[in-house]
Amino acid sequence: LGGPDSLGFAESEQFLTAAAASPVGAVLVKKDAPSIEKAVIRVDRPREAFAAFLNMCELPLPIAVGIHPTAVVAADASVAEDVSIGAYAVVESGAKIEAGVRIYAFAYIGAGSLVKKDAVIYPHAVLYRDVVVGERTIVHAGAVIGADGFGFTWNGSYHVKVPQVGRTVLNDDVEIGACSTVDRAMLGETSIGAGSKIDNLVQIGHNSLIGRHTVIAGQSGISGSCIVGDRCTIGGQVGVRDHINICDDVVLTARSAPTKTIDEPGIYRGAPAMKFMDEMRFEAGLRKIPALVKTIRDLEKRIAQLEKGA
Amino acid sequence: LGGPDSLGFAESEQFLTAAAASPVGAVLVKKDAPSIEKAVIRVDRPREAFAAFLNMCELPLPIAVGIHPTAVVAADASVAEDVSIGAYAVVESGAKIEAGVRIYAFAYIGAGSLVKKDAVIYPHAVLYRDVVVGERTIVHAGAVIGADGFGFTWNGSYHVKVPQVGRTVLNDDVEIGACSTVDRAMLGETSIGAGSKIDNLVQIGHNSLIGRHTVIAGQSGISGSCIVGDRCTIGGQVGVRDHINICDDVVLTARSAPTKTIDEPGIYRGAPAMKFMDEMRFEAGLRKIPALVKTIRDLEKRIAQLEKGA
Amino acid sequence: LGGPDSLGFAESEQFLTAAAASPVGAVLVKKDAPSIEKAVIRVDRPREAFAAFLNMCELPLPIAVGIHPTAVVAADASVAEDVSIGAYAVVESGAKIEAGVRIYAFAYIGAGSLVKKDAVIYPHAVLYRDVVVGERTIVHAGAVIGADGFGFTWNGSYHVKVPQVGRTVLNDDVEIGACSTVDRAMLGETSIGAGSKIDNLVQIGHNSLIGRHTVIAGQSGISGSCIVGDRCTIGGQVGVRDHINICDDVVLTARSAPTKTIDEPGIYRGAPAMKFMDEMRFEAGLRKIPALVKTIRDLEKRIAQLEKGA
Repeated sequence: LGGPDSLGFAESEQFLTAAAASPVGAVLVKKDAPSIEKAVIRVDRPREAFAAFLNMCELPLPIAVGIHPTAVVAADASVAEDVSIGAYAVVESGAKIEAGVRIYAFAYIGAGSLVKKDAVIYPHAVLYRDVVVGERTIVHAGAVIGADGFGFTWNGSYHVKVPQVGRTVLNDDVEIGACSTVDRAMLGETSIGAGSKIDNLVQIGHNSLIGRHTVIAGQSGISGSCIVGDRCTIGGQVGVRDHINICDDVVLTARSAPTKTIDEPGIYRGAPAMKFMDEMRFEAGLRKIPALVKTIRDLEKRIAQLEKGA
Repeated sequence: LGGPDSLGFAESEQFLTAAAASPVGAVLVKKDAPSIEKAVIRVDRPREAFAAFLNMCELPLPIAVGIHPTAVVAADASVAEDVSIGAYAVVESGAKIEAGVRIYAFAYIGAGSLVKKDAVIYPHAVLYRDVVVGERTIVHAGAVIGADGFGFTWNGSYHVKVPQVGRTVLNDDVEIGACSTVDRAMLGETSIGAGSKIDNLVQIGHNSLIGRHTVIAGQSGISGSCIVGDRCTIGGQVGVRDHINICDDVVLTARSAPTKTIDEPGIYRGAPAMKFMDEMRFEAGLRKIPALVKTIRDLEKRIAQLEKGA
Repeated sequence: LGGPDSLGFAESEQFLTAAAASPVGAVLVKKDAPSIEKAVIRVDRPREAFAAFLNMCELPLPIAVGIHPTAVVAADASVAEDVSIGAYAVVESGAKIEAGVRIYAFAYIGAGSLVKKDAVIYPHAVLYRDVVVGERTIVHAGAVIGADGFGFTWNGSYHVKVPQVGRTVLNDDVEIGACSTVDRAMLGETSIGAGSKIDNLVQIGHNSLIGRHTVIAGQSGISGSCIVGDRCTIGGQVGVRDHINICDDVVLTARSAPTKTIDEPGIYRGAPAMKFMDEMRFEAGLRKIPALVKTIRDLEKRIAQLEKGA
């Protein structure tokens, strides 16, 4: 690894210098990159080309085509011919598994769920009833899709559960990280748009609609009834309060917490989240407080001096 | 959904207007609500009535009564007659499963655990040993009840594990969300009071005692050895530090973090958490800093002017 | 519990007084502790001695030695003679299970993984492929080790998955809490050093290297490509941003968030994290703002008075 039989990639001149100095045998570089004392492969997008290279190296978690003899598949489930269903997987009544799907050991596919072509359900992932998983979508181990949304109404003595009778939809090319949870809608649906990628330990509340090609990093939480747009980037440990909208092309920095609808694309930071430059100015202001205190003490003395003279 | 064959509900005049303008066929309203140009059903509590209506619509995750042939139930476990135990569920030695309980596929009921009447254990939920689950209590998929509390003691060279030999008790009518964790006590017990509802990805530390009818939203953490009262409402991503008490009827807003015992009911906000109005004033003060800086600069000039004259 | 047939421990005089007043039958105390009106057992480290005592009381989650008939062990997996493999556990192709290992029900040991001597894998824990679990290391229920790191590259139209082809290594004497996730490296490895203890619902990002004897409390997240040193103590709900280093012997208080490399041992607090005393002074400054506002208003009046006289 990293030796003369390795491949590297460099997207900027800075990394090019580092790559030139490293022991790797060859470097993927941009078409217009300057030459270095090392074999280079010129491509349009070095990072993407490197990903394609890694793809060739990847060994997917092995699973045999066919249905493992220990899997429990309901008699009325519809299963395509060339799927892989691992040991002890359970496919419940009325579920539909399309061609090329891989369902690993212990995965639970609830009644009426639909898993579309080439989707991957890793070990121990759980789909409650009537969940839709799009084509090529990946659900990692321990993720729970379609558990009850968190809805109760207080009757004066105790909390009455509000049944969650809606659906949960993961569209095509979505990825859901390990131990993340996407709740079932009360009515209507909770949905993750095509191409969106969600990291580990993320919570998506009931009835929230996440747009397409949006990325949400680890341990973030989107409360219920939110609408998040397309191509948003949400950092780690972010909290989005319930019933607000985030428009397309918004970046929320790590640990930020929008408390109001955001309807202008851009970078937002802080808790409550503000436009990036406003927040930076605000934070800089906070850092000035010790200096301000000194200034005020000084002004007090000067005024006292003046008052003595008056 | 939402068409002329749908039912809505309206708890305030504002929602009544919206409901009147919507295409729903009928609206659940308060007994004393003004009439609107639409069929209304007058009830005491519209939201609760709507929940009851949804209840009629709900299709629970299907499971057959009886013990699935693939379930592994220890010979000395005590299982009531009319329980439902799904495919590949495991019930360990000495466990007791009471009447009406539903245990879904892959659930693990540890040795000596007691699951009381009509409780529901969803797929992949894990109860370690000697866990008590109350009547009608619901444990969602991926939740882990009774794993070791996080206790170590440093011996100068390494951390020595402090065995966690206590119990974990979920009382009646509790709900535990997907992938939430309630740790076993070191000694004594960790317990969740009757009627309390806990959302997804919540951590309850060892030896903490949560009161009754308390609600804890997603991704919040209660550290070890805390006492939380009855009827508290804890927002999402809250962190309660260890060894503090929160009295009855406290609201902790989302992402707040109490660091001291709270012994007066009310709303608390911020990190460290303060009384709501104090915190709002504090936050408003922070927002005034840029203006303060200007005022101070102005005062400096005026004093310099006075000093010149003196 | 806590009665005359119980044992307590007291590490300081304060706790000694409390122990003397309690109904316990005997107290573990330091060698040089003053006498109290109760039986004492004098030891070097009372807390550690108490842990050893609890150890004698502990009843581990029961599991029989041998391979449960329902476990699915690949023909080419290597399994030592005296292991315990529970009901429905799955051990995939090429995995190696060493002597004394306990693998509980539903645990998934991915292809090529190595579980070393006396390690414990609790129910529903998942190891993806090529994971290494050190000697005596404990992986709690619901933990997911070796899921894909969160790596994508934007090609102008959509996110392209960057394959994660590296490894995941838990060294000896590590403990991983329930529902925690340790991601597989893109290249190279993600690793947890010997003796480190990780609480529940913690996220460790791809390619991060955690040192030895480091403790990380619940719901904290270490982003990707971080290096954390030895003997660090990381509180709950901390967030460490990607690509930074934390040196040995650093304490990060709960909910802190370092955004830059820390290369000096000590206590750090706040978000962004600062040295403890600097942060305390900074926070104290914030609390002074209401008083500052009053002072400034007062100065304004006094200046106005002076200006009138001038």
